[in-house]
Amino acid sequence: MIGKLIARIKETGAPIVVGLDPQLKFIPEKIKEAAFSECGETLEGAAEAFRLFNRGIIDAVADLVPAVKPQIAMYEQYGLPGLAAFKDTVDYSRQKGLLVIGDIKRGDIGSTSSSYAEAHLGRVQIGASVAVPFGEDFATVNPYLGTDGVKPFIDVCRAEDKGIFVLVKTSNPSSGEFQDRVCDGRPLYELVGEKVREWGELAMDDCGWSDVGAVVGATYPEMGKKLRSVMPKNYILVPGYGAQGGRGKDLKHFFDADGLGAIVNSSRGIIAAWQNEAYAAYGQDGYADAARAAVLAMREDIAEALAS
Amino acid sequence: MIGKLIARIKETGAPIVVGLDPQLKFIPEKIKEAAFSECGETLEGAAEAFRLFNRGIIDAVADLVPAVKPQIAMYEQYGLPGLAAFKDTVDYSRQKGLLVIGDIKRGDIGSTSSSYAEAHLGRVQIGASVAVPFGEDFATVNPYLGTDGVKPFIDVCRAEDKGIFVLVKTSNPSSGEFQDRVCDGRPLYELVGEKVREWGELAMDDCGWSDVGAVVGATYPEMGKKLRSVMPKNYILVPGYGAQGGRGKDLKHFFDADGLGAIVNSSRGIIAAWQNEAYAAYGQDGYADAARAAVLAMREDIAEALAS
Repeated sequence: MIGKLIARIKETGAPIVVGLDPQLKFIPEKIKEAAFSECGETLEGAAEAFRLFNRGIIDAVADLVPAVKPQIAMYEQYGLPGLAAFKDTVDYSRQKGLLVIGDIKRGDIGSTSSSYAEAHLGRVQIGASVAVPFGEDFATVNPYLGTDGVKPFIDVCRAEDKGIFVLVKTSNPSSGEFQDRVCDGRPLYELVGEKVREWGELAMDDCGWSDVGAVVGATYPEMGKKLRSVMPKNYILVPGYGAQGGRGKDLKHFFDADGLGAIVNSSRGIIAAWQNEAYAAYGQDGYADAARAAVLAMREDIAEALAS
Repeated sequence: MIGKLIARIKETGAPIVVGLDPQLKFIPEKIKEAAFSECGETLEGAAEAFRLFNRGIIDAVADLVPAVKPQIAMYEQYGLPGLAAFKDTVDYSRQKGLLVIGDIKRGDIGSTSSSYAEAHLGRVQIGASVAVPFGEDFATVNPYLGTDGVKPFIDVCRAEDKGIFVLVKTSNPSSGEFQDRVCDGRPLYELVGEKVREWGELAMDDCGWSDVGAVVGATYPEMGKKLRSVMPKNYILVPGYGAQGGRGKDLKHFFDADGLGAIVNSSRGIIAAWQNEAYAAYGQDGYADAARAAVLAMREDIAEALAS
């Protein structure tokens, strides 16, 4: 699966993921009015607003980027209808030729982790039938429970040609509380990075990269540099660009000498670009075009950083 | 919220949670046949089998235990219909007077963690309306992202009188890979336990215990003893009893001198008791009665351990 992602990164020249993390406050009034007039001010109404909003963004960026990353929490917040909008977003993105990274940060043990893996990356057997519950291409995974929690995901990746990104060093201010603790002379995130390398050897893709990648925040560029060398065959999914403070020039060391090895996420900076002063001219009717313009600017910012 | 749980533990004499973690292989053929004949061998059929199976268990144990703990992964595995069965199980359990611990192990950052917290413990605002997405009483939370990930849950606990249990030392064999790493002279799980104590001070219940508890596996009794002292006001949710190998006598030190401070989960040992040789006489028609008998045996095992 990572080979497919890399092929599309090369085609588009954009090592970029658009984070589809909708919030009602990011959605133009007209879309909300349409959704609420159809479904009421209900969970269904919020979900319908997400669905319509996302489809506009997906249509506007599908030719520019290899992948989208819906954050399931934003949908789960609106209960079952919200999760139906998540599923619609996954399906519609794939129809439009995008790969889908489910940002689910799941992690449990044994049969429970297997259940999450099958839910998001695999298939389930029901009597004599088989069904695909959610059908993403990649998922993010929390490592706190160790190999028991991650291995079931790797098994599904191997069986279904899918991929995962394991949280190593997250982008948030308090990520250091546990992740930076020094254990046996080295920070915990490095030990987790080493495990990612080890787990990654179980799922090497023909392209030479592993289907097991890592999440390392743009907000910690020095740690990214170190982790790039700890995990030489593991792709890094980089959140924290834009709204969280990461910039193109912080990202250079997440990539290898060929400009591969990382893919950078931006959520709010793209999907809510129309609310940003720089893109205000697009107005609410142009929210999707504003998102497209923000992707183009981000592509340029990253290309400049990699060329420097 | 923890005060309500403690009151029910005292009423029932059972510091026990029934883990509602259905798998199709645990469900009597008759129930599966009824569900599949109504909905086909589909995600809907699997979900209907879960719904029927759980209602039987809930009816059989509701007067014996204070709480149930549905593991959301088992439902998520069957997609949107599966999650509808999760919601049905939450609602039906609450109708029967049980508290519900959503075993969701969520954890993310900032607005994303807030979304999970509102999804499971809170309410969401949609225009002028308010809706309850899932409506559990407690949720389990992963600490790997630090305070940024946990604080949004605590905020919702305070606003809505709900509770959480933060993963500290999990019951699985590989939990030590990261959790036992020695940082500054002490294992990581102890440092997480200290944070739980600190976070817990933000959400003290009138009863003197905190609405922020911890998860510590029955399979690590010595660590449980240590963590009991590190977190003197934080309830411990103890998985790993029964099928995972924990026994009543391992649990004594999870409790304080008054027999409070811990609540022990059993899932498979109760809900699949009818498949266990000891309860074989109940047969598939008696699966719910077998679950009831298994709860009574577990209550006795724990009472003996606490009395010794």
